[in-house]
Amino acid sequence: MRTPAENARLALLLEVAGTPKPGNVDRHRDLPELRFEHFLAGAVGASEGLALAGSGSPVGVAFERAVAGMADQGGGNTQFGALALLVPLVRAAADGDRGLSPADASRIAESTTVADAVAFYRAFEHVDVFVDEPPADASVPDVRRGAAAAAELTATGTTLKDVMATGAPRDDVAREWCRGFERSFAAADRLAGADGPLADRAAEVFISLLADRPDTLVASRRGVGVAEEVSERARELQRTDALAEEPDRLEAFADELVSRRINPGTTADLVAAGLFVALENGVIEP
Amino acid sequence: MRTPAENARLALLLEVAGTPKPGNVDRHRDLPELRFEHFLAGAVGASEGLALAGSGSPVGVAFERAVAGMADQGGGNTQFGALALLVPLVRAAADGDRGLSPADASRIAESTTVADAVAFYRAFEHVDVFVDEPPADASVPDVRRGAAAAAELTATGTTLKDVMATGAPRDDVAREWCRGFERSFAAADRLAGADGPLADRAAEVFISLLADRPDTLVASRRGVGVAEEVSERARELQRTDALAEEPDRLEAFADELVSRRINPGTTADLVAAGLFVALENGVIEP
Repeated sequence: MRTPAENARLALLLEVAGTPKPGNVDRHRDLPELRFEHFLAGAVGASEGLALAGSGSPVGVAFERAVAGMADQGGGNTQFGALALLVPLVRAAADGDRGLSPADASRIAESTTVADAVAFYRAFEHVDVFVDEPPADASVPDVRRGAAAAAELTATGTTLKDVMATGAPRDDVAREWCRGFERSFAAADRLAGADGPLADRAAEVFISLLADRPDTLVASRRGVGVAEEVSERARELQRTDALAEEPDRLEAFADELVSRRINPGTTADLVAAGLFVALENGVIEP
Repeated sequence: MRTPAENARLALLLEVAGTPKPGNVDRHRDLPELRFEHFLAGAVGASEGLALAGSGSPVGVAFERAVAGMADQGGGNTQFGALALLVPLVRAAADGDRGLSPADASRIAESTTVADAVAFYRAFEHVDVFVDEPPADASVPDVRRGAAAAAELTATGTTLKDVMATGAPRDDVAREWCRGFERSFAAADRLAGADGPLADRAAEVFISLLADRPDTLVASRRGVGVAEEVSERARELQRTDALAEEPDRLEAFADELVSRRINPGTTADLVAAGLFVALENGVIEP
């Protein structure tokens, strides 16, 4: 019987093992400076922070510790977004006693404090995270200010949930925090409904999530147009059931995204969150 | 800074990620009933037992807990042998303060008790481990007796080191316990001396260890002749530097062993132990 923290570690590992996961590091693909083994080390490094969440520590403290541990490898940012989803979900699972629900997850999001926001900002100092320029009229400090934002967060009484609410329109990790982690739970349902080895299901659900919505990281780095193009391509592969019927086309799409350096990392984060929910609720088993 | 228990988890993950690792599950190969994801789940499941070793628990207790956790997945025995090496090594690393030496590891082996032996036998009840028929004149109980051997172990004052000493002539995991974990430390030196991503180094060192000595698991399951043939083939691939010069020949060898169901699992266990030593001593870094 795995603990919530152990299920979160396993979710991180199963996510990166799924292949093909177009544009991302997976069991069959490395990127030039970011390799499979960096994700393995990131998952191990995140252990202590995830364990803190599992034992009821504040979300901010657990998240900052998880990110600091994750960053202790040479590949840079591997799982920042995934941890921003997993930490509150692990905390919710640890608080409950019968399965994990969207309401449980929302309750944890709502209960976050200014101290959680301050720790979240500090986490950006441990690793280089790609983030957009904030809008000129942003109501919360730029996350890239890190620990220096503490005084402003405190003066304005800004909680971590407030920070996420501000980011939600442009960031699908923040959006999960404001919508009961709906896509994470949807991913869990899809994982449970799919067939075959879990890593294969993870790859299948990755494509389905990419088809649903443009990837946040792709939109930030490469523009909304590219993100929409990638989602349209995923929809088309899904329509033709390429995973089952034309695996070569899917592999070609994966190779193309790697060569174009298009990296749908936020979609991978959602798969990791879905794997966690599904493991935690016992609807998938390794 | 990873703890010894975290380094052990990472060693288990890097070991299975190395490819090609002829005959074994690796980043590119599953076996029919034993998949990559079972090894990921096994590594996560072993966490608590490894953490016990890292906090000074007796080797037997930590090992039994690690095996019970490892077995909580559908693939069966994934890392029993690796844990039989890692648990004493983690315990030795946790006891020391400046690097891990063969003498540290031997000290832990020598200090094991009858209670450690009893726990070791109990571990065989958690998972189906392939073991040879013991010799007719064996001086210790058949490990397959599990917990039922406790009275005999106690009556004869048999420690876990005594059990390993009896197994050493035919079992290269037990042999490590009696020779200062010499091949584990040799593997660590080779990993440090190799180039490239850690998973690639793990694959390279796997071939070199296989070339050195016939694999115990292959010898047990398929006979000494087959084990010697496999080692001779590994020597020949090493002589021609196939990993660098003729990767296709190495891949063909890997495919051949999978199709012949020849599984050099003990050699993989030694690679995991070598990865741990190298991580712990800071001579490799992910």
